[in-house]
Amino acid sequence: MARGIKDKVAVIGMGCTKFGEWWDKSPSDLMVEAAYEAYESAGIDPKQIDACWLGTLSSGNAGVFLSGALKLDYVPVSRIENFCASGSEAFRNACYAVASGACDVAMAIGVEKLKDSGYSGLTNTGSGDTDGTEPNISAPGSFALLAPAYFHKYGVDPETGKEVLSRIAMKNHANGAKNPRAQYRKAVTMEACKTSPLVASPLGVMDCSGVSDGSAAAIIVRAEDAHKYTDKPMYVKALSIASGPGDGQFDPEFDFTTITENVRAAKMAYEEAGITHPREQISMAEVHDCFTPTELVIYEDLGFSPRGQAWKDVMEGFFDLDGKLPVNPDGGLKSFGHPIGASGLRMLFEMWLQLRGEAGPRQIKNPKIGLTHNLGGRPWKCVAFVGVVGSELG
Amino acid sequence: MARGIKDKVAVIGMGCTKFGEWWDKSPSDLMVEAAYEAYESAGIDPKQIDACWLGTLSSGNAGVFLSGALKLDYVPVSRIENFCASGSEAFRNACYAVASGACDVAMAIGVEKLKDSGYSGLTNTGSGDTDGTEPNISAPGSFALLAPAYFHKYGVDPETGKEVLSRIAMKNHANGAKNPRAQYRKAVTMEACKTSPLVASPLGVMDCSGVSDGSAAAIIVRAEDAHKYTDKPMYVKALSIASGPGDGQFDPEFDFTTITENVRAAKMAYEEAGITHPREQISMAEVHDCFTPTELVIYEDLGFSPRGQAWKDVMEGFFDLDGKLPVNPDGGLKSFGHPIGASGLRMLFEMWLQLRGEAGPRQIKNPKIGLTHNLGGRPWKCVAFVGVVGSELG
Repeated sequence: MARGIKDKVAVIGMGCTKFGEWWDKSPSDLMVEAAYEAYESAGIDPKQIDACWLGTLSSGNAGVFLSGALKLDYVPVSRIENFCASGSEAFRNACYAVASGACDVAMAIGVEKLKDSGYSGLTNTGSGDTDGTEPNISAPGSFALLAPAYFHKYGVDPETGKEVLSRIAMKNHANGAKNPRAQYRKAVTMEACKTSPLVASPLGVMDCSGVSDGSAAAIIVRAEDAHKYTDKPMYVKALSIASGPGDGQFDPEFDFTTITENVRAAKMAYEEAGITHPREQISMAEVHDCFTPTELVIYEDLGFSPRGQAWKDVMEGFFDLDGKLPVNPDGGLKSFGHPIGASGLRMLFEMWLQLRGEAGPRQIKNPKIGLTHNLGGRPWKCVAFVGVVGSELG
Repeated sequence: MARGIKDKVAVIGMGCTKFGEWWDKSPSDLMVEAAYEAYESAGIDPKQIDACWLGTLSSGNAGVFLSGALKLDYVPVSRIENFCASGSEAFRNACYAVASGACDVAMAIGVEKLKDSGYSGLTNTGSGDTDGTEPNISAPGSFALLAPAYFHKYGVDPETGKEVLSRIAMKNHANGAKNPRAQYRKAVTMEACKTSPLVASPLGVMDCSGVSDGSAAAIIVRAEDAHKYTDKPMYVKALSIASGPGDGQFDPEFDFTTITENVRAAKMAYEEAGITHPREQISMAEVHDCFTPTELVIYEDLGFSPRGQAWKDVMEGFFDLDGKLPVNPDGGLKSFGHPIGASGLRMLFEMWLQLRGEAGPRQIKNPKIGLTHNLGGRPWKCVAFVGVVGSELG
């Protein structure tokens, strides 16, 4: 028996709030908005939901946080937390439950309300260790280390390097400018990116994703049931997570030009989905651009670019909306925003729109296979998720 | 297709630390101990583990907390949190993943280290709501409300009522006294129970479970693969969770003699397992005796006793180790201890020993079907888990 759940389950409806600063809405309000859009999209009544999976880092505890908000009386709800990959993990576990036969109609939902939590992104939120060995470093500070390491290894001078990073930010903002749900809905210039205030050298504000409130949800059924609900289901081809052991921080070989968890998660997902040439076979991707150099490294870790070539692909527009492999067509974390538990499902929401031809001015021509990549933790110790979805069985 | 995973997966090995005060051990130390006992029990090498599920309320975040501790390099790890039912939920999600075909060998592990966390059990840990509607009440205070409500409804005078509660504590301590892994390994007298210092009237110290450190783990494979690993696998017959919407606190009909989530979770589990007469069909159970009146109400919620009769069953020894339906043969939360994320898997560990005939002086005669029940939250808003396991297929 081949390991995996390829083509066993399908998404039949999705919802996603506008991401942004929602001072006047609670996490419950945001979940209600995302869930009811998903119900309507799937054409189902809330009473048809058999079980739920909730992804959130810190906006609520346990299943009652969701069942209370949505008045899903006594429906099973599991809360999943896996740092910034919590939303993808809610989806992964919901898919497994449906594929196992444990439930017929499942909902995966992610939520985070960060703006009034006091979270700035600049404190050391650590990676869960209690043994005191974790370096005391902020999120931008840790991901900033990727940039000079990459530039040095591949002979990119610092000025060109800053332009490469800026091109990534510009691409994501140009895409987000076309997206009515994005938090920062405006295109930005090279000059604005290159001169934005430094956060952690060489990263400026324009290299960093936002701090956001939002929620996104997906309704999942077995693949053979999908056409009862919709003409255009989104089939799940592969789901994988790699959880880092944290040796990187002590490993003298770790050179900060790769995130090993990405490579491992992609390898597992590609095996499950039967993908041998990701650069050619994948139509589009949503990846975890928490900071611009993260997106640069992800291109190579996921096999979208050969090692050392991603920076050239960026400059040549390979990942632009009209490029060969559009990445973050919805604006990504950078422009759409990053309410932690919701981000993984927000990525899937864009796949849903694109695969159905409903992405409006962002629509990619005839996409068949989409990939989502969600990351939680630090470059040397993290959880990486890779999901592959498609518009057709097989 | 019948909904559920009956007989699709099996447990092939388990481990469990002694529960207690482990001031000199970290959560990682405890997980290593439980996991390596489970590996040895299953006869597997750690490298055979395809994926893990980690249940903990507050002892660690995300998958890296486990993959780092166990040096499970890049293996998928999902952290599940569902209040005090986190360990059972780790097991449930791991079982679904195996049943779906996503992995061949999975580990579910739970851990909590409470003694040095400052957790006393007496603060209001709430139920995850951020909207300010949750009553500000401690855990013993909220579960204490069950006792007078039950006694009043069924005409039990307060003195007899206190004896009923004391009998439950005495039973669990008598069982735990036979268990080398129990935290409070001693039998207690009726007098000691009736006169123990008040915590929340009518509950004394002897009506309350402990604050503990510990870890427990299970190795899960598909049922058809189980005999490759062991002659005596434990088959999973049903797994269910009911997550309360929290209407109870505002519901004038809610009379505190039942926990609706228990009833709903049991109904789903019994349907999945094909159990129609739990009082007769179930050989033994481990239930969530966080406080003595909780265990009393659970007997009726799970159908072990008709409504209003559980207190008589208690006095007649129905649930004693040598009774018709032994409950908490390992000592339960009361005597074995309650390291939150580990408790659900600790219950399964006792089922594992009992079904294999390895429970030593606690051994129940020829058990076939065991039930575990794990609860998180408050009587009016909680998550209830019911799992059914058996020694044979069918």
